Amino acid sequence: MPAALAMPEPELVDHAGLDSAMFVRIYLLGLKIFVPLTVLAFVVLVPVNWTDGTLEHSNDLTFSDIDKLSISNIASGSKRFWAHLVMAYVFTFWTFYVLHKEYKIIATRRLHYLASATRRPDQFTVLVRNVPPDPDESVSEHVEHFFSVNHREHYLTHQIVYNANALTKLVEKRKGLQNWLVYYENKFTRNPTKRPTTKTGLFGIFGKRVDAIDYYNAEIEKLRNEEATEKEKITTDPKAIVPAAFVSFKSRWGAAVCAQTQQSNNPTLWLTEWAPEPRDVYWQNLAIPFVDITVRRLLMAVAVFFLTFFFMIPIAFVQSLANLEGIQKVAPFLKPIIQMPVIKSFIQGFLPGIALKIFLILLPSILMTMSKIEGYTSLSALDRRSAAKYYLFIFVNVFLGSIITGTAFQQLRKFINQSANEIPKTIGVSIPMKATFFITYIMVDGWAGVAAEILRLKPLVVFHLKNAFLVKTEKDREEAMDPGSLEFATSEPRIQLYFLLGFVYSVVTPILLPFIVLFFSLSYVVFRHQIINVYNQKYESAAGFWPDVQRRLITAMIVSQLLLMGLLSTKRAAQSTPFLLALPVLTIWFHIYCKNRFESAFIKFPLQDAMVKDTLERATEPNLNLRSYLQDAYIHPVFQKEDIDAPVPFDEEEANPLVPTKRTSHRNTPAGSKHGSEVGSDIDF
Amino acid sequence: MPAALAMPEPELVDHAGLDSAMFVRIYLLGLKIFVPLTVLAFVVLVPVNWTDGTLEHSNDLTFSDIDKLSISNIASGSKRFWAHLVMAYVFTFWTFYVLHKEYKIIATRRLHYLASATRRPDQFTVLVRNVPPDPDESVSEHVEHFFSVNHREHYLTHQIVYNANALTKLVEKRKGLQNWLVYYENKFTRNPTKRPTTKTGLFGIFGKRVDAIDYYNAEIEKLRNEEATEKEKITTDPKAIVPAAFVSFKSRWGAAVCAQTQQSNNPTLWLTEWAPEPRDVYWQNLAIPFVDITVRRLLMAVAVFFLTFFFMIPIAFVQSLANLEGIQKVAPFLKPIIQMPVIKSFIQGFLPGIALKIFLILLPSILMTMSKIEGYTSLSALDRRSAAKYYLFIFVNVFLGSIITGTAFQQLRKFINQSANEIPKTIGVSIPMKATFFITYIMVDGWAGVAAEILRLKPLVVFHLKNAFLVKTEKDREEAMDPGSLEFATSEPRIQLYFLLGFVYSVVTPILLPFIVLFFSLSYVVFRHQIINVYNQKYESAAGFWPDVQRRLITAMIVSQLLLMGLLSTKRAAQSTPFLLALPVLTIWFHIYCKNRFESAFIKFPLQDAMVKDTLERATEPNLNLRSYLQDAYIHPVFQKEDIDAPVPFDEEEANPLVPTKRTSHRNTPAGSKHGSEVGSDIDF
Repeated sequence: MPAALAMPEPELVDHAGLDSAMFVRIYLLGLKIFVPLTVLAFVVLVPVNWTDGTLEHSNDLTFSDIDKLSISNIASGSKRFWAHLVMAYVFTFWTFYVLHKEYKIIATRRLHYLASATRRPDQFTVLVRNVPPDPDESVSEHVEHFFSVNHREHYLTHQIVYNANALTKLVEKRKGLQNWLVYYENKFTRNPTKRPTTKTGLFGIFGKRVDAIDYYNAEIEKLRNEEATEKEKITTDPKAIVPAAFVSFKSRWGAAVCAQTQQSNNPTLWLTEWAPEPRDVYWQNLAIPFVDITVRRLLMAVAVFFLTFFFMIPIAFVQSLANLEGIQKVAPFLKPIIQMPVIKSFIQGFLPGIALKIFLILLPSILMTMSKIEGYTSLSALDRRSAAKYYLFIFVNVFLGSIITGTAFQQLRKFINQSANEIPKTIGVSIPMKATFFITYIMVDGWAGVAAEILRLKPLVVFHLKNAFLVKTEKDREEAMDPGSLEFATSEPRIQLYFLLGFVYSVVTPILLPFIVLFFSLSYVVFRHQIINVYNQKYESAAGFWPDVQRRLITAMIVSQLLLMGLLSTKRAAQSTPFLLALPVLTIWFHIYCKNRFESAFIKFPLQDAMVKDTLERATEPNLNLRSYLQDAYIHPVFQKEDIDAPVPFDEEEANPLVPTKRTSHRNTPAGSKHGSEVGSDIDF
Repeated sequence: MPAALAMPEPELVDHAGLDSAMFVRIYLLGLKIFVPLTVLAFVVLVPVNWTDGTLEHSNDLTFSDIDKLSISNIASGSKRFWAHLVMAYVFTFWTFYVLHKEYKIIATRRLHYLASATRRPDQFTVLVRNVPPDPDESVSEHVEHFFSVNHREHYLTHQIVYNANALTKLVEKRKGLQNWLVYYENKFTRNPTKRPTTKTGLFGIFGKRVDAIDYYNAEIEKLRNEEATEKEKITTDPKAIVPAAFVSFKSRWGAAVCAQTQQSNNPTLWLTEWAPEPRDVYWQNLAIPFVDITVRRLLMAVAVFFLTFFFMIPIAFVQSLANLEGIQKVAPFLKPIIQMPVIKSFIQGFLPGIALKIFLILLPSILMTMSKIEGYTSLSALDRRSAAKYYLFIFVNVFLGSIITGTAFQQLRKFINQSANEIPKTIGVSIPMKATFFITYIMVDGWAGVAAEILRLKPLVVFHLKNAFLVKTEKDREEAMDPGSLEFATSEPRIQLYFLLGFVYSVVTPILLPFIVLFFSLSYVVFRHQIINVYNQKYESAAGFWPDVQRRLITAMIVSQLLLMGLLSTKRAAQSTPFLLALPVLTIWFHIYCKNRFESAFIKFPLQDAMVKDTLERATEPNLNLRSYLQDAYIHPVFQKEDIDAPVPFDEEEANPLVPTKRTSHRNTPAGSKHGSEVGSDIDF
C-alpha cells in the first residue's frame, strides 16, 4: 500500500493512463479543499458556536452534542453570524484558488500528454458523420472526393464504417457455442470412455439427445457459413455502409484543422470531430442522422426528468403487489406457505425493500442505455453523460430526499408551490438537523465502500457467483476474473455527493468535515493502489472528463451558498443576506472564467502543438509510411483478425514496467477477443 | 413608395446591403406569422369567446366590448377552453414552421452573399488578439514568426495595430479648428473689408481679441506639428503597439482555418476570429487582455441588472428635487418667479416627466457605452449586445411594468416572494385587462412611430436644431444632413415588443392582432422605402444579427406560453395545464434544434465555400497581387491619407444603380473623413 503512494505521478500516468491518474486527483482535490477548511472551521467556527449556548437555555431537550457545535447553537439575530459570513467568503475564495490551480494542472497535463504521446492513429484521424447521400458515388468515393478537394494538401486516406450489428450478433453466438465445445471436449479428455451428449432444445434440457461434440462442431460450422455470407453481404451491399467515415490526414496539423472547422455550408452535413481512440469508439451510434439525434435527446431529457422525480411510482406499485395480501389475492393456493412464520417475516421485511434495491442496482445500466440512445459515439462520452444523469438522481433523491423527507415528486410539488426565496429557507433550516444522519451516511456508504473496494468484496462475490453458475472453461474463468476498471459513470457522481456535503456543512456544522477528510484520504490511498495494481483501463480519453467534474463542483458550491443564505435569513441575520448574495454571482463568474480559460484544452487541439510534433516526426522518421500505419486502425472489431494478437495501444510499457506491480496483465487474453467482447458487454459497465 | 415594394430582393441586397435587406425581413416575418394567426383567431376564437356571455350575466359592469371578444368572457371551468388550448398548439406550430423557414432562408442568403461577394480584405484576414509579449521580438516579428511556422503554407502578411487614441483626439481637435478657419475665411470672403476676430479663451467669449484667420492658421499649424510628433512617437515606440494584429492569408481557405482553430495551448493567447470588415472595426477595444474582459463583463452584467430594475431610484430622486418646494428650498431667490402661474404650472406639469424622458433618450447611448466597456471589437457586435440589453429593459419596464403596475424593483420583490407557479398566474390574470392599454400603445408608439419615420420628423427636428446652432460651414451642413442608418440597437428590441404582444394576446384577446398586423405592414413598406432611398449603411455584417432575433422571438413565445398557462390555471381549466406544459419544452427543443442547425452559418465559414472561391479566383486571376491588395486594408483611420478618396467597400454599385433611387449618395463626403468621424461619433448611434 505505501508503494502506491510512493509512485510519482508521471510514472503513474505512464502506467495507468492519464484518465486514471487524473481521476485519483479528484480525491486529492477533496483533501486540498477540505483539510484547510476543517482546520479553519475548528479554529474559528467551532469555538464561536460552542460558546453561545442557546440550545442549553432553550426548552428544547432534543439537541445532541453535535448540535452544540453547529450553527443551531447561535441565537437568532446574533452578531456572531458575521463569523460565519466571513468564513463563507474565506472558504469560497480558498475553493476558487484550489479549483483554478487544479484545472490549470489538469489542462497542462492533458496537453502535455497529448503532445508527448507516441504516434497513435487517433492523432491523425477525424470522425466524419452525416456524409450526404450522392446518387452517382458510393459513400467511400464521396468521402474521398470531398476531402481531396477541400483538404487537398493534407488528406491521406479514409476508412468507411459498416453496419455490422447483425454480424456482431452471429459472432457472439458462435463464440458462446465454441465455449460449450471446449467445455465438452475437456469433459471428453478427462473421461474418454463416454462421449458427452446434450439436448438440442432450450438450455440443453428439452429436445433430442445428440452427441455434444459433433453437434456443436456442426452448429459452429453452420454459423461460420452464415457469418461468411453476412460478411460478404456487408462488404458488397452499399446499404450496409454507414454514412460515416474515419478520415486520416498526412499530418496532425491537417487533422486538427479538419476536426475544428466546418466543412459544408449545411452545418448538419459532413460533421467532423476528433476520432476517439479505436478502443473508445461506440460503433452502433455512428449512423444516426442529425435530426434523429435532436429528437432522441429531447425524449431522453424528458425521460431523465421523469426517472428522477417519479421513479418511486412504479416501485411503489411493485411494492404494493409484493405484500402479503397482494400475493394471497393473486395466488390463493400459496396461502398455507405464506402463513408460515419464517416466510411471512421474510416477505414482510425483505420484499418491499428488494424492488428498490434492484432498481438502484440497475439504475447505472438504465442511465447508460439512455445515454446510448442519445447517440454519443464514444464510450468516454457515454460515461460522462451517464455520470451527469446519475449526479442529478443522487442530488435529488439522496441529498434533497434526505433533507426534505418525502419522495422527489412531493418535493417538486412543494417547490413549485413555494416562492423562489422560500425554497432555500425550507431546505436551509433542515440542514443542521440532518448533520447526524449524513455523518452516519458518510461512515456507512463512504468509509465502508472504500473498505469493500480494497477487499474487492463486490468483485469477489460476483466472481464466485459466476464461477459457480457460469464458468465452463478457462476462458470463462479468465473473463470472470477481469479486475474491472474505474467506473466513471457511477464513481464520480458519488464523490461529488461528498463534495456537496462538505461545502454545505463547512459553515453550518463543521464537525462533519473530519469525516469527509477521512473519506477522501482513505479513498485516495485505496484508489491509487487499485489503479496501479488492479484495474485495467477500457479506454483513454486523456482526462476529458474534467470540465464535467469542475461544473458539478461549481454547482455544489452554488447550492451550498444558496442554502446558507436561506438558513441565515431564517435566523434573523437579515443584514448579512445581501453580502451572501454576491457569492453565487462570483461563483458563476468564476465558472465562466475557468470555462473560457481552460475548457478549450479539452475540446480543441492547438495547431502549434500539432505543428511541433509533425515537424519533429518528419525530422526523426523521414521514411515513415503513414498510410500503412493508419490503414486498418479503425476497423469494426468483428472484422479484425481474431486470433492474431493485434497491437493494443498503450500496452508498450506493460512489457517492461517501471515499477513492479501486482496487476495481472491482460496480455494473456488475446486482444482480438477482448475487443470482440466489448461490443456485447459494454451494456453493463 | 410602390417602387420600394417592386424592387426584387437580390437587387435590394445589392443596393442596400444584406444587413438592411434582412432587417426588413423581420417585419415581413411578423406578417407571415400574424396574418394567418389573425384569420384563424377570428374564425375560431372570437366566435367562441363572443357566444359565451359570462360577462353579461355577471354583476361586473366595467367590461368593454373588447373584453367580450376576449377569453375573459368564458366562464371558469368551461369546456370552451379546449378551443384556446388547441389554438395555442396550432399557433405554436405555425410559428415554428415560419421561423424555421425564415432562419433557413437567412442562413442561405448569408452564405450565398459571403460566397458570391467580390474580393474583400476581410475574406483573407483574421483578427489576432492577445499576442503574448516576447522579450526578444517585437509584436510584429512575433506575429510573423508564429504564423509563418504554424500556418506555413498559408500565411501572407500582417498589419499591426497602433494605440492611436491620443492621435485620434488631436486629429479631431484639428478638424474642429479647420472648420472654424473655413467659417472665418468664408466670412472674410463675403465681407473683405473687415478681418474677422475671435477671442482666445473659452468658447471664443473670454480672453484676448485676435485676428481669427491668423489665429486659427497658427493653431492648426501647432496641432499639425503635435500630430507629426505623436505619429512619430507611435510608430517608433514599441509600447504604442497593441498586442493585436490583422493577419492575412494567401487564400480564403487559410483564413477560414485560422479563424476557426485554436492556435496556442494557452487558450487565452493568440485568440483568432474573423476580422470584421475595415469599416466595422472598433479600434479602441483591440488591446484589452483576456482577464480584463471577463472582469468587465461581470461588472457590466451587474450594472445592467441594476439599471433595469433600479433605474427609477435616481430618477425619482431628481424628480423629488425638481418640484416646487425643492427648488424654493435650494434657491429661495427664485421664489417670485416660480410663483408666477405660467411657470408654476409648467414646472408642475412638465419637470417631473422630463427627467424620465431625458433618461429614456439617453438610454441607448448608456447601453452602448456599457457594451463598449465589455470589450467587443466590432461595431456590429456592439450593436447586437446593446440590442440585447435594451430588449431586457423594454421587457421588464414596458411589458411587465404595464401589466403589473409598480416599478421594476417592486415587481422583482413581488416575484421572489411568490412561488414559481404563482408568478405566471399573477401576470396571466392581468393580461386580458391590459388589452385596451396595449392597443392604444400600438397606435401611439407603433403606428405614429412609423408615420414619423416616413416623414423623418426626428431627423428634421435634429437637422434644424443643428442648423440653427452648430452649422458653420458646408461640411457641417452635410454632416447634419447625414440621413442616418438603421439603428439595430434600438429598432430591433422595439419590434420584438410587438412580437411579444402578438404572441401573448393571440390566444387571449385576438382583437389585438389586426393592430399588430397593420403595424408590421406599415413598417415593412416604410422601412423598405427608407433603406432604398434614405439610409446609408455604416457597416455590413451579412445579417450576423439573425441568431439574436431568433433567440428573442423564442423567448417571447415561451413567455406567452407560460402566461397562458397561468391564466388558464386560474380559470379552473386545470385539466388543460399539463397539455400546455409541453409547449415550452417543445419550444426550447425547437430553439436548440435551430441553433444546431443554422447558427454555425453565422459564426463559422465553411471550408468548402472558401475552397470553391479560392479555386475560381486562381483560375480567373492567376496574376493577382494579393499582398499589395491587403497591404493597407486594416490601417487605423487616423493613419489613412485623409484627402484621397480611398476605395470604400460596397460602393461599387453606387455608381451605376440598377434601380433609380432618391438616396443622396455619400460620395460627396470624402471617405477618409467619413472614417475619421466614425471614431468619435459612434458613441451616439
